Amino acid sequence: MEPQSNSYLCVFKMKFKLEASDKFSKARAGEISTDHGTIKTPIFMPVGTAGSVKAVHQRELKDDIKAQIILGNTYHLYLRPGLNTLEKAGGLHKFNGWDGPILTDSGGYQVYSLSDVRKIKEEGVTFRSHIDGSKHLFTPEVAMDIQRVIGGDIIMAFDECTPYPCDYNYAKKSIDMTHRWLKRCCDRFDTTEPKYGYSQTLFPIVQGSVYKDLRIKSAEAIASFEREGNAIGGLSVGEPAEEMYAMTELVCGILPVEKPRYLMGVGTPVNLLENIALGIDMFDCVMPTRNARNGMLFTKNGIMNMRNEKWKNDFSPIEADSELFSDLVYNKAYLRHLITSKEILGAQIATLHNLHFYLWLVNEAREKIISGEFYDWKKKMVIQLAQRL
Amino acid sequence: MEPQSNSYLCVFKMKFKLEASDKFSKARAGEISTDHGTIKTPIFMPVGTAGSVKAVHQRELKDDIKAQIILGNTYHLYLRPGLNTLEKAGGLHKFNGWDGPILTDSGGYQVYSLSDVRKIKEEGVTFRSHIDGSKHLFTPEVAMDIQRVIGGDIIMAFDECTPYPCDYNYAKKSIDMTHRWLKRCCDRFDTTEPKYGYSQTLFPIVQGSVYKDLRIKSAEAIASFEREGNAIGGLSVGEPAEEMYAMTELVCGILPVEKPRYLMGVGTPVNLLENIALGIDMFDCVMPTRNARNGMLFTKNGIMNMRNEKWKNDFSPIEADSELFSDLVYNKAYLRHLITSKEILGAQIATLHNLHFYLWLVNEAREKIISGEFYDWKKKMVIQLAQRL
Ligand SMILES: [Zn+2]
Ligand SMILES: [Zn+2]
Repeated sequence: MEPQSNSYLCVFKMKFKLEASDKFSKARAGEISTDHGTIKTPIFMPVGTAGSVKAVHQRELKDDIKAQIILGNTYHLYLRPGLNTLEKAGGLHKFNGWDGPILTDSGGYQVYSLSDVRKIKEEGVTFRSHIDGSKHLFTPEVAMDIQRVIGGDIIMAFDECTPYPCDYNYAKKSIDMTHRWLKRCCDRFDTTEPKYGYSQTLFPIVQGSVYKDLRIKSAEAIASFEREGNAIGGLSVGEPAEEMYAMTELVCGILPVEKPRYLMGVGTPVNLLENIALGIDMFDCVMPTRNARNGMLFTKNGIMNMRNEKWKNDFSPIEADSELFSDLVYNKAYLRHLITSKEILGAQIATLHNLHFYLWLVNEAREKIISGEFYDWKKKMVIQLAQRL
Repeated sequence: MEPQSNSYLCVFKMKFKLEASDKFSKARAGEISTDHGTIKTPIFMPVGTAGSVKAVHQRELKDDIKAQIILGNTYHLYLRPGLNTLEKAGGLHKFNGWDGPILTDSGGYQVYSLSDVRKIKEEGVTFRSHIDGSKHLFTPEVAMDIQRVIGGDIIMAFDECTPYPCDYNYAKKSIDMTHRWLKRCCDRFDTTEPKYGYSQTLFPIVQGSVYKDLRIKSAEAIASFEREGNAIGGLSVGEPAEEMYAMTELVCGILPVEKPRYLMGVGTPVNLLENIALGIDMFDCVMPTRNARNGMLFTKNGIMNMRNEKWKNDFSPIEADSELFSDLVYNKAYLRHLITSKEILGAQIATLHNLHFYLWLVNEAREKIISGEFYDWKKKMVIQLAQRL
């Protein structure tokens, strides 16, 4: 991919190729092409908050977990190491040594959930850093500029992610502002160029809380921008799973079939399969990594709480029929010991396990979609995955 | 190594083969054979406090760091996971998945430094757990029994490790008790058998603070027990380096040449080289691992404090001419960011680096001893290693 020397904007655009569609559900298998490589969908993206997927080496991400794309958080990266360092490094890929595709969020979600003081106005959001209390302003334009500096292959529009529950009138006003902000994001994005010689793609985000008419209105507005991919935000924020699925189904019916659909911040293994069945292609969530550090393991047979006394003298491998080295080398009693003793290696082993499992799960879903067995397999799996071991 | 079916005690004994001796110093290269493999000396043993070398996978220990033996702490392992679990696992090797040689300390040092309440009497030491305040008694016999259960290939005598400074009369009385305790350790050790089908070896420990006559007396007493290896304890506890070297030199002159000498709890890279020159074969220390977690890196060109502002925008590899994957994949600015952001990956990268470096250093010393270049090389290195980068 050589950028044209006489063109201002990069001519290469992210491509999405639909490879297979399930007959009995809306599930699909596809492939996203970026300048940092291809991504087979459906895909789960490990979250690399501050430029690092916590407790995991890049080598493990690539060779053991087989991650195809990772996520970076704009809010965290903007505060630390900061834009000056990121730009001097030549972007996040060069900074953290991950040379595969990267997606960055817009910073909005963390501003709402982590920062100390904030004020949401038409212009943007003012907030104070949770690290040092310093004051900052994120606007749609600033969010684009920051993400140009970070250099993610896929970058996200700056939106308002409403909490749950959310007053109907607030949600209604909020999507209107989110759509106006999206216009500003696109204007800024389309009149600036990538900084590091490879192209970036902007995904807009559907909001609307759990209100059908607002989700429809937002999905139609978002689709009309005709970007290369679309995202659904504001779900998995505390609403019942059934409401989440209802919104996903509704929105997937409106967002174009030929473009990837990214459901932000979701979720449990069951959530992944149910949403894949509704037409989602991309996921991210801190659950496999954060819960790992607390000793919760997701497996194909259900959930294990490694703090549980029952593993104390269980010296069988963490997962006997796994392909992951650490699932075989270490036993359950040892992992329990490491987690209860707050040993770093416990976080490393559990995180590796959960991410490996999440990537196994979406790849398995993909293969079942291609082979036409997805529907039955999913029906069996959602029961298995939710068990407590 | 098949244990003889009709013998009560294991017939196999740890072997030490002296391979080369330096002409210009007391440095030597050798090989220790255990049932879990051989150890090329001089050697540094990474400390696996609670059954885990903090932040390092067993795979990394073996393939990247090339550790040949690791250390386990009896005090920590006795409290967590506890003897019941360790015995049911079949010993520490089976519990933590490290199948190379393991050395365990006797628990004494941690009892003195970590536990809350303690009383040292002729019988042994009573203390309260730093975890839950529970009361325990360690005696020479108990220390042997516990180490039989943990199953280290090399186990240590239960001694009193005197602090620095230490009153002469206290130190004098203390070595007498340490020697009486050693007799009890040997009696217990020699009348019990290993639990897991491979042999264990007991090392006695020379004490005597920084008093020459006490060190001589203790070294002679310890040598007279004629065990397969000998250790020097009570150094690197705050005394000036010159006093440490004086004691090592004195004691190495008395301990038998044909048996390995282990200097406990030492030290900096310079300490290692100076003590190798005095005849030491084995080292352990938490410094490379603990300091790594605080951002201090040891390199062949000196010490780097990764918290330093000067690395903020230095995107060169952590160590460009290293064979370690992580030294090449990650850059200094990124490691600085991870350490200052308290990211787990920072501890992982820095720990890998320091342990790899320590193992590189002792292996390099070994090769220089064999090739006859040790003395000049050491003279150059001790200046280089102490620099601040
Ligand atoms: Zn989530
Ligand atoms: Zn030390």
